[in-house]
Amino acid sequence: MSVVALVPAAGRGERLGLGVAKAFVPVGDRPLLWHAVCGVLAAGCVDVVVVAAPEPDLDRAADVLTPFGGAVVVVAGGSDRIESVRLALYRADAMLAAVEAVLVHDAARALAPPGVFTAVVAAVRAGRDAVVPVLPLVDTVKQVDASGRVSATVDRTTLRSVQTPQGFAPDVLRRAHAAALTAAVAAAGGAPRAARARAAGDGVALPAVTDDAGLVEAIGEPVYTVPGHPAAFKITTEFDLALAEMLLARAHAGGGQLR
Amino acid sequence: MSVVALVPAAGRGERLGLGVAKAFVPVGDRPLLWHAVCGVLAAGCVDVVVVAAPEPDLDRAADVLTPFGGAVVVVAGGSDRIESVRLALYRADAMLAAVEAVLVHDAARALAPPGVFTAVVAAVRAGRDAVVPVLPLVDTVKQVDASGRVSATVDRTTLRSVQTPQGFAPDVLRRAHAAALTAAVAAAGGAPRAARARAAGDGVALPAVTDDAGLVEAIGEPVYTVPGHPAAFKITTEFDLALAEMLLARAHAGGGQLR
Repeated sequence: MSVVALVPAAGRGERLGLGVAKAFVPVGDRPLLWHAVCGVLAAGCVDVVVVAAPEPDLDRAADVLTPFGGAVVVVAGGSDRIESVRLALYRADAMLAAVEAVLVHDAARALAPPGVFTAVVAAVRAGRDAVVPVLPLVDTVKQVDASGRVSATVDRTTLRSVQTPQGFAPDVLRRAHAAALTAAVAAAGGAPRAARARAAGDGVALPAVTDDAGLVEAIGEPVYTVPGHPAAFKITTEFDLALAEMLLARAHAGGGQLR
Repeated sequence: MSVVALVPAAGRGERLGLGVAKAFVPVGDRPLLWHAVCGVLAAGCVDVVVVAAPEPDLDRAADVLTPFGGAVVVVAGGSDRIESVRLALYRADAMLAAVEAVLVHDAARALAPPGVFTAVVAAVRAGRDAVVPVLPLVDTVKQVDASGRVSATVDRTTLRSVQTPQGFAPDVLRRAHAAALTAAVAAAGGAPRAARARAAGDGVALPAVTDDAGLVEAIGEPVYTVPGHPAAFKITTEFDLALAEMLLARAHAGGGQLR
């Protein structure tokens, strides 16, 4: 029984403004994608990694990941994150007969530490069919209106910031993605992307599902939490990138892992 | 007309686990409180800083802040953050006749960059009586129940993470703190802290107000937002502390400010 990790890495990384797909943005002396996959394998609990790379950059992604050998497979990503995960999941299912757990991990969370992976895999093995790493919200949280005026302060004690890797029993993740695809196609009579746009145009309130656990919630299956880690932050801005480089430099200098 | 900053710094910093009040935790080669006050003054738009320090450590706080001269005044903090801010506000009112804007700034946000201070002061000067720096929430946000199971995914598009410095027209901040004190005393027939404990014991749902803007919201006055900055993060954990040290080292090495 194997554990597979799906790594959606087809984003454009426009907020970083470096004119290169986010997967190939250098973090220290290596592309972000290299660090992300290295982190997955370093956890020691994942057998196969399926990376969904930007379609025009498949060869480049394969080159970057050559050092990891046969444990890593590259597929072409889709038009959005959900589609990229679905395509990676199809490939995993075609490759592997017996999968015990599927992780989905944002390439942009390239410095997620090993302990988060092992905690998520252990929880799935213990029978939790959907598991997400979470952190409490440190700052006060307020709701704002369209003009930027505060409309309320939110009780954040029951809220959690959700990271990846997220872990799933394979069948639960398959059913969640199949249901999302069916719903989108049915709503639109067309492609998933058009469905979302049309439903929005009709004033239909489609919840913006921003992670795979959200798709699992949508089919009524329970989702559980394990403690996340601040180093699993998503590299989105120039600030985040500088942060990632400082953390790597510290690790290379033997500074050890930060708790 | 002057601008005064109130800096509550009486917290115990237990999560850092260093056995010293958070104000005196070293960040690089200086105490956290030194960096916080240095940041306030470096913004160039604040005339006087009133620091609320832990009562047993008043002399130590004064020593730490000696390099800043007469621009910085130290008072004894209270039993919680709200009380510390109120005591600092009393002192500011007793010292200064004409105050144009009052900032409240967590000492733990020791690396808040100058641009946040100037933006908040400019907004108050432009007629906004209560202003908070905010950032969007990057991660998916979910609500959890007491067992740690996810109960819902929250629409985070209208939510903002709230930082300090927060800026206020002096009279609005005075009224907000006076109302909070009156409400707490009335509810308890005693001291503010006892009020909160007793109301909680009676099952009365007191909203946990975690910032000064929340007190302003409670008296029905509008609160506005300006863009915050990731470097204004709150130093709470060992990870945050290491991050702060890396950012300082980078700044000292001439790395410039991160956007």
